[in-house]
Amino acid sequence: MPLMTSWVTSANDANHPFPLNNLPYGVFSTDSDDARCGVAIGDMILDMQAAEDAGLITLADYALFELPIWNDLMDEGPAVWAALRDRLIALLSDGAAERDKVEPLLVPMADVTLHMPFGVSEYTDFYAGKQHAQNMGAILRGSPDLPANWLHIPIGYNGRASSVVVSGTPIHRPNGQTKAPDADMPSFGPSKRLDIELEMGAIVGTGSEFGQPVTVDQADAMIFGYVLLNDWSARDIQGWEYQPLGPFQGKAFGTSISPWIVTAAALESFRAPTPPRDKELLPYLNGSKDGLYDIELEVLMQPNGADSASVISKTNYNRMYYSAAEQLCHHAIGGCEMNAGDLLGSGTISGPVREEYGSLMELSWAGREPFTLDTGETRGFIEDGDTLTLRGNARGDGFTIGFGDCVGTILPAVTWPAE
Amino acid sequence: MPLMTSWVTSANDANHPFPLNNLPYGVFSTDSDDARCGVAIGDMILDMQAAEDAGLITLADYALFELPIWNDLMDEGPAVWAALRDRLIALLSDGAAERDKVEPLLVPMADVTLHMPFGVSEYTDFYAGKQHAQNMGAILRGSPDLPANWLHIPIGYNGRASSVVVSGTPIHRPNGQTKAPDADMPSFGPSKRLDIELEMGAIVGTGSEFGQPVTVDQADAMIFGYVLLNDWSARDIQGWEYQPLGPFQGKAFGTSISPWIVTAAALESFRAPTPPRDKELLPYLNGSKDGLYDIELEVLMQPNGADSASVISKTNYNRMYYSAAEQLCHHAIGGCEMNAGDLLGSGTISGPVREEYGSLMELSWAGREPFTLDTGETRGFIEDGDTLTLRGNARGDGFTIGFGDCVGTILPAVTWPAE
Repeated sequence: MPLMTSWVTSANDANHPFPLNNLPYGVFSTDSDDARCGVAIGDMILDMQAAEDAGLITLADYALFELPIWNDLMDEGPAVWAALRDRLIALLSDGAAERDKVEPLLVPMADVTLHMPFGVSEYTDFYAGKQHAQNMGAILRGSPDLPANWLHIPIGYNGRASSVVVSGTPIHRPNGQTKAPDADMPSFGPSKRLDIELEMGAIVGTGSEFGQPVTVDQADAMIFGYVLLNDWSARDIQGWEYQPLGPFQGKAFGTSISPWIVTAAALESFRAPTPPRDKELLPYLNGSKDGLYDIELEVLMQPNGADSASVISKTNYNRMYYSAAEQLCHHAIGGCEMNAGDLLGSGTISGPVREEYGSLMELSWAGREPFTLDTGETRGFIEDGDTLTLRGNARGDGFTIGFGDCVGTILPAVTWPAE
Repeated sequence: MPLMTSWVTSANDANHPFPLNNLPYGVFSTDSDDARCGVAIGDMILDMQAAEDAGLITLADYALFELPIWNDLMDEGPAVWAALRDRLIALLSDGAAERDKVEPLLVPMADVTLHMPFGVSEYTDFYAGKQHAQNMGAILRGSPDLPANWLHIPIGYNGRASSVVVSGTPIHRPNGQTKAPDADMPSFGPSKRLDIELEMGAIVGTGSEFGQPVTVDQADAMIFGYVLLNDWSARDIQGWEYQPLGPFQGKAFGTSISPWIVTAAALESFRAPTPPRDKELLPYLNGSKDGLYDIELEVLMQPNGADSASVISKTNYNRMYYSAAEQLCHHAIGGCEMNAGDLLGSGTISGPVREEYGSLMELSWAGREPFTLDTGETRGFIEDGDTLTLRGNARGDGFTIGFGDCVGTILPAVTWPAE
């Protein structure tokens, strides 16, 4: 598929993240208008509330874009998702008949504040990167051997939806319990091993019924879109707390997502297969489609006051062992009800060489081998004031499907007890 | 505090679960009316939507009881909670001046269907019973030694809010992955080791801010009320999946709660201390109030077709090591935002002797020592058609604060793949 051209000419650049082929969904506000749904096209945003009010979008018998979240559209299901995409392409294509009605509803992206694009119903984080799992085993347990269940189960755990925030939201370094290996007692204070996890987030669009499983193919059709996801992690808190019931406060202080939902439809031509299976999966985990996507990913780090950010990792979502559809199928296999707005983190995406690792834990090998930034500074873990950015792009034939950066700056820990 | 008498005379029995001292909050529907908030008093329910419409309850400048969940009241905070309780006591006390206006708004409990009393924002399950943790260690790892962090951290993990259902909702036996210790590969099918967990659920009424911790005393004041909670567990699925990231599908197929929220205010006179600490807690986990409650708990089991249920366990919530307020404080310590409607499971409540154990895993010692029901049948784990009931009562001086039973019947596993 080549570039689809738009009368919004900024969208027609081969490297622009938001061409007509993309049409990602976000929520924005301006100095004069409250938060509302919008669609990115080039350097502009189409105000969906205004477009619906103007009668340009008529897909439901109620105001689909009354609320400043995309969950109502998700609930409508794949036929309406497709109808909206078709309609947006018709309105924004080069030569569109209704251009004069649409043009007044465009808002310059430079003038807006972006908000959470959807209400997160529940958040689940997976562990589907094989290189990452092997690295963590080597670092934490002294052996790269995978856990016994890893090649059979898309391992996941429930995370905290209330801590999911949109790109740009600052994150306080968390306080918590940690214990040094040689200490008798734990101590309390700010985390000293603050980390990122480079992930993709899959957003469930249509739910499943309580008590009823879904197949991998059904799960694939339930996924509305994807965001970049940074699962901030306090390794020292996590290390002390996670036995036997898994990560909890080491993960609960913040999870950042990129502000634009890139739809599964926009990514369709970038599907990529999961790798050959080391062990055959149980039949319920087999689907008919390639479940990964060819999305180039980068992590950038910028210390407070530095002129520019350093690229510290480059990898690709197609490195994963399990797809989001497989994860979603497994999630519902026992009858767990899935809902519109459920967010599934892919797990940390690490490629086969250190330059492709998706966490500082791996990039600095638990701080033992600090890496050097372009500024000459070194890092094992995150320092206060550091800004971390995730970036993602799918590269097509003369066009790019961009995600919009996922950015977060670490603030010092709050004083405890709270005033 | 003695029994407070009501003009609803059925409420004045020393053993009735819903005297004027209690006033628990639920949601009910009738053949003629949709679901709405109600307050139990004796054998009747006060229709709160009707009471607000009639001008008998005026606590907010909007319709506090428009929706069939209690979350709006929770959001109003402790001063409004107290005002509502005072007003209900005034309306329902023996000799109340407005009895003639209230009486037409009472609905016989025998005529209603009960629904989820609140919207579960997120669900967290803890592991705060010391006897239970020691039993599980002995059964699963061959040693009753507690995990190294257990005496320092009120260990918890995030559960699945979408699977929380009201008492009476049938639960399908879950399908899932399991692996026998001597098998090379896992297999797929219905769980063979289906279990309950006897727990109390604490409901967060007022939230906390993203990035900001709370103290134990603040946490105590944030708790709106309590329910009985059965954290259904598939031990074979859980056993294969839980390393290294904790329970997931072994817990996701259902969590049942009793239908009435018993308020913290109603339980105030039943506060009980946590036990002496085996190791001193870090200062952030210290509060000034007794955080447990003296609540007698029972588990009953009734096979399909049996005439009556057998009591299989009797214990008390005051057996726990950590209180809900300590758990909530720990939950927010790194800045995790807590919200109205968050549900915190206490962890399985097991007393010091087998008759007090709160799961079948412990009662039958992993199925190795099946127990006998009154019918003469034996059980290691749950069989299809079995009904499990949790019951809870706080016994006062001439009155009882009852919770209303938490009931669930296990249905056979669904056929996979779904038709």
